Amino acid sequence: MQDANDPLANYRDLFHLPEGIIYLDGNSLGAMVKTAPQRLDVAMRQEWASDLIASWNKAGWWQLPQKLGGKIAPLVGAGPDSVVVTDSTSINIYKALHAALALRPDRSIIVAEKTSFPTDLYISEGVMSGPAHLQRRLIGGAGEGQQQVLEKALAQALDDDVAVVLLNHVDYCSGALLDMAAITKKVHAAGSLIIWDLCHSAGVIPVELEAANVDFAVGCTYKYLNGGPGAPAFIYAAKRHHAHIKQPLSGWWGHADPFAFRPDFTPQPGMRAFLCGTQPVLSMLALEAGLEAFDGIDMNAVREKSKALTTLFAQLVLEGAQGFGIKLFGPPDANERGSQVSFTHENGFAVMQALIARGVIGDFRQPDIIRFGFSPLYIGFEDVRNAAKILLDILITGEWKRYKNTGNGTVT
Amino acid sequence: MQDANDPLANYRDLFHLPEGIIYLDGNSLGAMVKTAPQRLDVAMRQEWASDLIASWNKAGWWQLPQKLGGKIAPLVGAGPDSVVVTDSTSINIYKALHAALALRPDRSIIVAEKTSFPTDLYISEGVMSGPAHLQRRLIGGAGEGQQQVLEKALAQALDDDVAVVLLNHVDYCSGALLDMAAITKKVHAAGSLIIWDLCHSAGVIPVELEAANVDFAVGCTYKYLNGGPGAPAFIYAAKRHHAHIKQPLSGWWGHADPFAFRPDFTPQPGMRAFLCGTQPVLSMLALEAGLEAFDGIDMNAVREKSKALTTLFAQLVLEGAQGFGIKLFGPPDANERGSQVSFTHENGFAVMQALIARGVIGDFRQPDIIRFGFSPLYIGFEDVRNAAKILLDILITGEWKRYKNTGNGTVT
Repeated sequence: MQDANDPLANYRDLFHLPEGIIYLDGNSLGAMVKTAPQRLDVAMRQEWASDLIASWNKAGWWQLPQKLGGKIAPLVGAGPDSVVVTDSTSINIYKALHAALALRPDRSIIVAEKTSFPTDLYISEGVMSGPAHLQRRLIGGAGEGQQQVLEKALAQALDDDVAVVLLNHVDYCSGALLDMAAITKKVHAAGSLIIWDLCHSAGVIPVELEAANVDFAVGCTYKYLNGGPGAPAFIYAAKRHHAHIKQPLSGWWGHADPFAFRPDFTPQPGMRAFLCGTQPVLSMLALEAGLEAFDGIDMNAVREKSKALTTLFAQLVLEGAQGFGIKLFGPPDANERGSQVSFTHENGFAVMQALIARGVIGDFRQPDIIRFGFSPLYIGFEDVRNAAKILLDILITGEWKRYKNTGNGTVT
Repeated sequence: MQDANDPLANYRDLFHLPEGIIYLDGNSLGAMVKTAPQRLDVAMRQEWASDLIASWNKAGWWQLPQKLGGKIAPLVGAGPDSVVVTDSTSINIYKALHAALALRPDRSIIVAEKTSFPTDLYISEGVMSGPAHLQRRLIGGAGEGQQQVLEKALAQALDDDVAVVLLNHVDYCSGALLDMAAITKKVHAAGSLIIWDLCHSAGVIPVELEAANVDFAVGCTYKYLNGGPGAPAFIYAAKRHHAHIKQPLSGWWGHADPFAFRPDFTPQPGMRAFLCGTQPVLSMLALEAGLEAFDGIDMNAVREKSKALTTLFAQLVLEGAQGFGIKLFGPPDANERGSQVSFTHENGFAVMQALIARGVIGDFRQPDIIRFGFSPLYIGFEDVRNAAKILLDILITGEWKRYKNTGNGTVT
């Protein structure tokens, strides 16, 4: 595919992108839509400064968790009342794990991937630090790029003690994409519940939470959803669980009647039971602007373009850089990965420094992985060709040798 | 005191305040400093849109929890490394309760006030939903406006089973101010720990956390600290606890080496152990602008003005409205209350509607309380005189009878 034939080519105009930069890190921090500063200016000068406290109702601030959840819902195959935007992904994982454990009180095991994005593991440790009977089983995951490894390990891990399985839909490192429907079915067959972490799939893959019968899902909004730095995360629960949501972060925003100021907690039925405290309105309004880019979008077209972009990039690099120490990390088939391509290189950190100096922004993950994300709304085929050309140049000429191979390269 | 003699009179110019409004609700949502929109515009156009992922280091986003905590620290009598800004007050109460319980593993009781701001109670319920041995004792609180009631009830509640006491420094409803140092001493004498909720005192009362030997404190930043709607909250821990912080929201931002992406959680020593997930940067930067108004401020001068404002308002209203059904709710002595004055009136909701229609913004709390907050940085004595005059007018002429006395009047 070429840019001239790209049905999504016009979307690029919605974004502010700096001159002379090829930004392949939208899977870490998405680009800004051009309308976001104006939206925040109105929010600050009119809604906050002039209308003051009245804006909680008048400007709809109080309803933002549901309103924004309703905008994310169609992107992840959920009903409009099944998603809320609130807090961080980490905190939402905590809530989802507790909600799942409460639905399986006779079971005590959490299953997670060894290669999971670490916060998922850290939070499951935090959950286990509570009730003494809880335990965890870590299984070989898709971090090595092999869905089969994960499926086999999962089959071995599932038994009558497993309450909940927490998996990453797309691995943050290898980009491996798991088969949500098939795995959910196997987890349910064992009587367990599933939580999918959609951080690296929401906004770039046509996720089908309801069709796949998923129990809970969480995800971040500052990557492919372009919500802005640290924009609040989202959480999903299947309708069948809405009447039974129990999670310990029971703050006043989740109360059935928050302005009655009653001393006892009664959760609001439905997804607001996942809310806790007052939400950061300005960050949420920037996310609202970012989500407008997705209005009426065809997620299948996004996925097709994404696959074409990653296929082209992997092909150009692997063909051109043979013998220069670079290896694909993750699935070779675009159907089995998200919208990213990762490689290993012994001097990966130096290679990424050299790329950044040449205006190609990707990122580095320990110990030797260079990672490139392709946001189909604002990355085109010409970008891919140019980025591959620069990477090949750096590898073939040894330009990376000018850079040190150590340092904290993650937040570049 | 008059505006001409007010050493803080110049601060008003720092704020954007709408014409024709007397805003006595800064204890719900603080006003906006004039520099905030420009700060966010730079953050969006330059830091986010142009510098992209590099801004986590280059613009210092990653350090914002500590940087902003360091700016709040002198306002609450804390050392620069003892406060971080993160998440919501509710979530920080959850962390502080867990951290305190972990320090008193042989004790199982949480003491809190019946009349506490409800989220404190809701969160303590959430904490109790974990380990089965935890219980709670609710005591008569300062919500009725009597510090003595609270002190007596607390003395009765304290015993060898009490792990932690959670109290509101200033009651959200009555405005009653508790004696932090004296109460903390009594709680410590019983071998218990204390958490102070500073939502209604931070930024308006010279809080002395270290001098009072307080264990933990939390507070919100969108009231008297003018951080903007839903701006992230803060949390404090005494230095002596920094090496022992254990709380279950153990996300990657609290990890000792977050970019090593190790599978096991090791908390970062010090206050970062209270961080969890990625923080809403835009909302934090608006808070940073708001905090700049406090640079070099004398909190004793703020308190003196605050007491003069509330004294004048209470006096004018109570003297002028005798026989019109209005009663002071809360301590009559300004030394014993925060920067607010509350009254009861049988038709309080209608009275508040009438006030808002006349441009005096306060708020209503169930069942019959009208509440007025006085932010000394932007409220002057002329405002107080005018607001009192309008309230008297509404009461004496019965103007409030034009309004219904029912509705959700809290978020006005």
